[in-house]
Amino acid sequence: MSGISNIFGKDLKIINIGTSKFKNDLELQSRDVVQVDWEPPAGGNKELIEALDKLEKLDKEINEANEKAVNIIKEANPFLVDVGTAKDVIPNMDDNTILHAGPPIKWENMCGPAQGAVIGALIYEGKAKNEERARELAASGKIKFAPAHEHNAVGPMAGIISPSMPVHIIQNKTHGNYGYCTINEGLGKVLRYGAFNDEVIDRLKWIEKEFAPTLKKALELVDGGINLKTIISQAVQMGDEGHNRNNAATSLFFREISTYLLETDIDKDVIKRVLQFMKDNNHYFLNLSMPACKVALDAAEGIENSTVVTAMARNGVEFGIRISGLGRNKWFTAPANMVKGLLFPGYTEDDAALDIGDSTITETSGIGGFVMAGALPIVQFVGGTVNDAINYSEEMYSITVSENTNYAIPTLNFRGSAIGIDIRKVIEASTLPIINTGIAHKEAGVGQIGAGIVNPPMECFEKAILEFSKDK
Amino acid sequence: MSGISNIFGKDLKIINIGTSKFKNDLELQSRDVVQVDWEPPAGGNKELIEALDKLEKLDKEINEANEKAVNIIKEANPFLVDVGTAKDVIPNMDDNTILHAGPPIKWENMCGPAQGAVIGALIYEGKAKNEERARELAASGKIKFAPAHEHNAVGPMAGIISPSMPVHIIQNKTHGNYGYCTINEGLGKVLRYGAFNDEVIDRLKWIEKEFAPTLKKALELVDGGINLKTIISQAVQMGDEGHNRNNAATSLFFREISTYLLETDIDKDVIKRVLQFMKDNNHYFLNLSMPACKVALDAAEGIENSTVVTAMARNGVEFGIRISGLGRNKWFTAPANMVKGLLFPGYTEDDAALDIGDSTITETSGIGGFVMAGALPIVQFVGGTVNDAINYSEEMYSITVSENTNYAIPTLNFRGSAIGIDIRKVIEASTLPIINTGIAHKEAGVGQIGAGIVNPPMECFEKAILEFSKDK
Repeated sequence: MSGISNIFGKDLKIINIGTSKFKNDLELQSRDVVQVDWEPPAGGNKELIEALDKLEKLDKEINEANEKAVNIIKEANPFLVDVGTAKDVIPNMDDNTILHAGPPIKWENMCGPAQGAVIGALIYEGKAKNEERARELAASGKIKFAPAHEHNAVGPMAGIISPSMPVHIIQNKTHGNYGYCTINEGLGKVLRYGAFNDEVIDRLKWIEKEFAPTLKKALELVDGGINLKTIISQAVQMGDEGHNRNNAATSLFFREISTYLLETDIDKDVIKRVLQFMKDNNHYFLNLSMPACKVALDAAEGIENSTVVTAMARNGVEFGIRISGLGRNKWFTAPANMVKGLLFPGYTEDDAALDIGDSTITETSGIGGFVMAGALPIVQFVGGTVNDAINYSEEMYSITVSENTNYAIPTLNFRGSAIGIDIRKVIEASTLPIINTGIAHKEAGVGQIGAGIVNPPMECFEKAILEFSKDK
Repeated sequence: MSGISNIFGKDLKIINIGTSKFKNDLELQSRDVVQVDWEPPAGGNKELIEALDKLEKLDKEINEANEKAVNIIKEANPFLVDVGTAKDVIPNMDDNTILHAGPPIKWENMCGPAQGAVIGALIYEGKAKNEERARELAASGKIKFAPAHEHNAVGPMAGIISPSMPVHIIQNKTHGNYGYCTINEGLGKVLRYGAFNDEVIDRLKWIEKEFAPTLKKALELVDGGINLKTIISQAVQMGDEGHNRNNAATSLFFREISTYLLETDIDKDVIKRVLQFMKDNNHYFLNLSMPACKVALDAAEGIENSTVVTAMARNGVEFGIRISGLGRNKWFTAPANMVKGLLFPGYTEDDAALDIGDSTITETSGIGGFVMAGALPIVQFVGGTVNDAINYSEEMYSITVSENTNYAIPTLNFRGSAIGIDIRKVIEASTLPIINTGIAHKEAGVGQIGAGIVNPPMECFEKAILEFSKDK
């Protein structure tokens, strides 16, 4: 009897690899079957497989370029060195420019919170006296809208930066480049969620007139500025992930800056208000961790042959990514996803805006969702379990170039965080970067209604890999 | 053939339970053998087994008493309410009393760091002008030495509290009792490690004259005082364990107190120095976490039939424990152990003092070593691996009465920390509480030379269980 026909005389032990259709049929026949999940590279998409094949010939060049890019990101050394007015310090910003989060978008296409934030910014700037006039002006073509990312800046949620707003100035001491981000307003009714009532405008004015000049004076006394890398490095070991949870980093920054504030000649009452504002806002440091990540990634842009992602950002309608080897302001976009997570009581998924904001710059540089395993308390905020958080972090090693021991994850035996998203690996493994983020109400000005987990659309990476392989 | 003789005809599969002697012999004969570690209760000690047997009849009463004790510890709500001078606020303290860490000890029996700290305290108090005079006075019988623990107080390392020293005043809002602890001096040459040079005395004077009055004024502005339970609860999720690592709690406390300091009428320069002092000392909060634990445990003393440990403390020579059901100031002592851990460069085990200080009050109330699984960065300081830390925390559930969800451990899926050490369980399982602690140089004034892991001597628990069972 031949071996092959012999198997029908025995009890079969069946392993099914790939599509579960066969497994399901066998189970209907009450057969035991072990399922091995497997799918072909790039989900079997022929065009993408061809692109990957093309790039395989350039493996050595691409790997070298990626090593270079990732080393730049790792070696970046971001310091908070100053506070300035947006139009004075942000490159190519003028009195009629308004910067926003994510890839380019026109006023008429913006989502509710983004339009609300633009309206608020125009009122704050004194360019419009009310919502109606602000809408007219925004639609008139007189205002230039541009991604903050294209001006070395980043902004959380709507991410609006208008000319008079004070911004943190971050210097990358290793590579010399600068980055910018506004001052975080706190929670509740705030511009970045599209609110524009008097409370919001008054707070922005106070930040401009009292908070920023005070912080600026304190920073003048700090020799070389405040080392943000050290703070983030400690915070990652203290339950922060630098995106959705910044309790530790905010506390460490607070502790660091407070004595310098007291060294200034500024009134005690003013210093008290400035410290109270930071004390009451656990997210203060988000607007420092974001530009800290931004200056690291900007330094790694424009490296020929590098398939490393240098920006991921959302404008509330589209998700966009940028690739080191594909030029500085080249975006690969696709419709933004819904965030899955925990909503605050009283809200449903119907209330939620799509994924929005530049804060995914944290994941792009290997913190945020990528270090959730070191920030377990976050699962109580974004949903999921401790194991989910650990799995998320571990999965990211499969789509990244390297590990960053500056940001060591205690629960993973102090393994460095996954860093340098490689679009080839994302496509090949059909595994997307993990992002943990806030959820905005879809209407302007309601504010945050929850937090959760989201992925970029795969389409961004598909477009990027096709473009990358085009002329190879 | 009978079943029993039949086994010699086959390959043996051997499982050895208990003593490994048989296993070792079999392995010498190249036999495979599975070893099951087992030992009889109480290590087979007949007297102890009899004591446990006696107590088994009282199981219900003891368990109820222990539940009561543990609920008191859990429900305690420690607030920092004030700062005062030791002799004015600590019960039964007068101008000639010096309090020390651990169980009672005479001057002549004290270890190097403890004697050094007494010398420093006498110089600081103006009772002696130099070391020689201080030694004479200490030996003269004119100074009353007493455990801080017997005066509702606790002190780290040597734990010396002299009459003029300012102390944090902690109120347990649930049960109304108070606890006291000095202000942490920082690292380096400090009294608690037995240093008494001018730098040490000057710092103590500054704490008395400037720091304490300033903090007191700020606390007067805090309605109800500062909630230490909330801070510890957060800190345990931020990599602290409240004994050897207090980075998060110190930062949170700093953030909390700073705005109140600025509300006082005190000069900016003074406030700056006060904040700078706290900013530079990651251990500031140790002298708040200790009395916070102390007031919780003091409230659980004197509960008839309770076998719960209400204090563990060391004077540098002896380790002492107290049991809820055995009276307030009854100590069960045995020689203190050596701490095993990481020594700073340049030191050897020969340089190390024995385990010393009241800081084990943290483990007694279920933090410190008991929550190491939530404070993984500590392994880089005390030695061992991430798995060790997790195992330590998990093992503590086998010797405790309950779990404390106020202090939830993220890495253990937010399981509440093990709380309420039960001397019966310690004896039965031959498992000792885990302590993670600093290592002092054995000579006065050298300071901290490392940190590590230590257990109390089993003898303390043996003496306690025998005493407990005596009249039952």
